[in-house]
Amino acid sequence: MRLVSIQRLLRRGAITNLAKMLARMHPADIANVIDHLSSLKEKREIFELVRGDVKRGQVLSELDGESITLVLSDLLPSDAAWLLKDLGSDDIAYILSVIPNDRAKEILALMRTEDSTEIADLLKYPKGTAGGIMTTEFFALFEDATAQEAIRRLQQATDAEMVFYIYVTDKEDRLVGVLSLRQLLTVPPATPLKNIMTRDLISVAVDMDQEEVSRQVASYNLLAIPVVEKDGKLVGIITVDDVVDVIREEATEDMLKMAGAIEEDAMFKSSSMAAARVRLPWLFTNLVGSLLSGMLLWMFRYTIQEVVAIVSFIPVIAAMGGNVGLQSSTLIIRGLATGLVELTDVWKIFFREAKIAFLMGIACSLMLTVVGWLWHQVFLGMVVGVSLITAFLVSTSMATVMPIVLKRMGVDPAVAAGPFVTTANDITGIAIYLTLATIFLEQIR
Amino acid sequence: MRLVSIQRLLRRGAITNLAKMLARMHPADIANVIDHLSSLKEKREIFELVRGDVKRGQVLSELDGESITLVLSDLLPSDAAWLLKDLGSDDIAYILSVIPNDRAKEILALMRTEDSTEIADLLKYPKGTAGGIMTTEFFALFEDATAQEAIRRLQQATDAEMVFYIYVTDKEDRLVGVLSLRQLLTVPPATPLKNIMTRDLISVAVDMDQEEVSRQVASYNLLAIPVVEKDGKLVGIITVDDVVDVIREEATEDMLKMAGAIEEDAMFKSSSMAAARVRLPWLFTNLVGSLLSGMLLWMFRYTIQEVVAIVSFIPVIAAMGGNVGLQSSTLIIRGLATGLVELTDVWKIFFREAKIAFLMGIACSLMLTVVGWLWHQVFLGMVVGVSLITAFLVSTSMATVMPIVLKRMGVDPAVAAGPFVTTANDITGIAIYLTLATIFLEQIR
Repeated sequence: MRLVSIQRLLRRGAITNLAKMLARMHPADIANVIDHLSSLKEKREIFELVRGDVKRGQVLSELDGESITLVLSDLLPSDAAWLLKDLGSDDIAYILSVIPNDRAKEILALMRTEDSTEIADLLKYPKGTAGGIMTTEFFALFEDATAQEAIRRLQQATDAEMVFYIYVTDKEDRLVGVLSLRQLLTVPPATPLKNIMTRDLISVAVDMDQEEVSRQVASYNLLAIPVVEKDGKLVGIITVDDVVDVIREEATEDMLKMAGAIEEDAMFKSSSMAAARVRLPWLFTNLVGSLLSGMLLWMFRYTIQEVVAIVSFIPVIAAMGGNVGLQSSTLIIRGLATGLVELTDVWKIFFREAKIAFLMGIACSLMLTVVGWLWHQVFLGMVVGVSLITAFLVSTSMATVMPIVLKRMGVDPAVAAGPFVTTANDITGIAIYLTLATIFLEQIR
Repeated sequence: MRLVSIQRLLRRGAITNLAKMLARMHPADIANVIDHLSSLKEKREIFELVRGDVKRGQVLSELDGESITLVLSDLLPSDAAWLLKDLGSDDIAYILSVIPNDRAKEILALMRTEDSTEIADLLKYPKGTAGGIMTTEFFALFEDATAQEAIRRLQQATDAEMVFYIYVTDKEDRLVGVLSLRQLLTVPPATPLKNIMTRDLISVAVDMDQEEVSRQVASYNLLAIPVVEKDGKLVGIITVDDVVDVIREEATEDMLKMAGAIEEDAMFKSSSMAAARVRLPWLFTNLVGSLLSGMLLWMFRYTIQEVVAIVSFIPVIAAMGGNVGLQSSTLIIRGLATGLVELTDVWKIFFREAKIAFLMGIACSLMLTVVGWLWHQVFLGMVVGVSLITAFLVSTSMATVMPIVLKRMGVDPAVAAGPFVTTANDITGIAIYLTLATIFLEQIR
C-alpha cells in the first residue's frame, strides 16, 4: 500500500525520498493519499513536498473539500491564485465553492480579470445542474471560418481543456454545428466550417439536472456535450470525465438513500455527532414503524397468550415481506436511474413482479407449512403460509408502484426503498398473520 | 413519451410517418424504443424501418441481447455481416457474443479476413476483463515517424474508433509513448514522434478486472486507456464511453446484490419463473435466519407468557439492529467500490461507525425507555433501551468488519449487506433482549 509507505517515510523524516516518490506519482494518486491521511500536519507536509505549480494545482483539484480548505488556508491568497491559474474553470469554481466564502472572494480578486469573471459566472449556477458542472474552456469558431484558420487557432489555443470537438457558432454566438479534429484535417484548407460541420448535434440546457446530462452523455457515447442558454447561446461544455464523476456520485447517493445514510457521510469526514444526526431521522422513522408493529402484537396479546406458538413465526412474517419488496424496489429504482425502466412500463413490470412474488411466495409457504407442521401443528403452518403469500403480494405491489408514483411526482424514487415502505410492509404482514391466527384460533390451538 | 407515440403509429400502420420519425432519431434512442417494445413483431417492424446500413448497424450495437438475437435471426448471415462491418471491433464482438454460437460463426466467416481474425481474437478474452471490453481500433505509429507522417496517416485512417490519443510503439510493437492530436499540430512537421511524445503513460494489462480499469480511467480522467500484453505489446484500447457503461453496470450489480436480486434480472427479460429461481436462494437464507429468531422466541416462551408486554418491543429489536448495520455496511461497500475507503482505513472507520452507532443508540434508547414507561412500565423500557444499544454496537461492528474481511479474502464485499449479516444481527438483537428480560423478569413484571 502506497499510503502506508508514505506514512512511514513521513514519520522517519525521509524528505528526499518522499519528494522523489511524489515526483513519480500521478496528481490524482497524490490527492488520494492526502485525503486518506488523518493528521492535518501530514496532509500539509505532503502537499508542500509536491514540486511544480502545475502539478500542485492538479493535486489541489483532485482533493476533497476538507483537504482543499486545509491546504489553501496555509497559502497567501496570491499564491493560491497562482496555483489555480492553469486549472480548468470548472475545477477552479469547484475549489472556490468548497472553501470559506471570504477567502474565495480574496483569491478570485487576485486572478486575471477574464478568468475571474468567467468563474464568478460559473459560481452562480446551482449545484447539480449542467451549469454547475460545465467548463467555459471550449473551442468554438465562427461558421464562416475556414479549416485552415481553425487549425491555426487550435495551434494557439492553450486553455481549451481537452479539444476533441470544435463547436461552430453563428453571429449571435448560438451553437449551430460541431466537427471533429480529424474532419478538419481531411478537407481542403479553404473550406468554410459551415460546409463540413454536422448540424444535427446534441446539446443540453444550462439548467438541466446533472443526472439527466450524464444519462445523455452515456447513452449517446459522447466525449463532451455543449451547454446552451435558452436563446441557444453556447456557454460551456461538460466533458465525459466529469460525467463519470456524476454517475458514480448519483449511484452512491441512491444506495445511501436506500440505506438511510446520507451522502456527506460517505466521505467519512463529518464528526460522529454530525453523522449520527443525519442518520437518525431514518432510524426514528423505522423505530416508530416497528413500534406500530409492536402495538399490533400488543392488541393481539390474548391470541398470543392463548397459542404462544404464534410467536415462533413473527420474525419470519415481519422480515420476509420487506425483503421481497426490497428486491422489487431496488430493481425498479435502479432501472429508473439508468433509463432501463420507463414510466410507461409500469403495468408490465407490476405484473411481472407480482407473478415472481407469487411464485416465490408459494415456495416459501410450502416450506413454512412443513416447518410449522413438524414443529407445532399443520394448521398453524398453513396460516403462516397463507399470510406469507398475501404479505409478498402486498409488499411487491407497494415496492413496484411507489418508486414510479414518486418519480411521476418529481420525488427521488430511491426514498421508496427507505423506511416508509419497508415499515408499511412489516406492519401489513403482521396484521394479516395475527388476524388469520385469531380467526382460526380453534384450529391452530 | 416517444415510445407511446411510436406504438400508436405502428398500430395505425402509419409507415411513412414512422420512417420519418426514425430518420430524425439518434440510433441509441431507436435502440431504446426497440428494447422497450414488448411485441417481437413490433421490434422487427421498427428495426426494418430504419434506413441506411450505417445507422442500422449503430442501432444494432445499442440493443440489448434479446433484441439483437431477434433482429439478427431475421437476416441472412451475409446481410448481418454487412451491417456489422462498420462497427467497432468491441461492438461486433459484443453482438456476436450474445447470439447463438453457430450463427456467430457463420457471420464471422462472411466478414473480411482481417476483421474476423481480430474479432475472433477479442472473443477469446474473458468477459469482465480489460481484453473483454477493449477495441482493436486504435491509432498507433512507430516512434521514428514524423509529425507530418502522422497527420497524413490520420487523414487516411477510417476505422480508428475515436482518435484523441496517438499511441507510439517501438520496433517490437511495445507501447512506449502517447501524444494528443493537438500536440501534433503544434510542432514542426519533421519532428519525430519520439521527441514529442509523453513517455510517462498509464496502461492496463489485458487480464485486469474491468472494475479496476474503470477506476483508473475515472481517477486519472482519461478518454481512453491502452491495453497491453504481458510483454508490453499494445493490443487494444478501452474508450471512456465503455468505461461509463462498466461503472453503471458495477453500481447496479452491487445494489442488486445488496437486495438479493440478480443482475440478469435487471433487464426485466427473463421469465418470471427464472427470475423467481435466482431470487429465491437469498430469500430462503433470510427465511431460515428469521426462523432461527422465531426459535429463540419459542425458547423464551415462558418469559413471554409471564410478561406478555415483552412482545410489544420484539419488532423494534428485530428491525433496528439490522437497519443500523445496513447504514454502516452500505457506506463501506460503496466506499470500497469507489476507492474512497482503503483497506488500511479499517480501524479508523470501525471506531467512527461504532461511535456513531453508540450515539444513535443512546437517542433511540431514551425514546424507547420513555415509550416503555408510558405504555407498560419503566423497567421494561430500560431493558429495551439497553438491549438496543448493545444490538446497535454488535451489528455495526459486524457490518463494518465483514465487507473488509470479505474484500481481503477476494470475495465481493457487497454480499456482506446481504442476508447472512442482516439475519445474524436480528438474532443477536432478540437474544440480548430476551436474555435481559428473563434476568430482570421480577422487575419488569
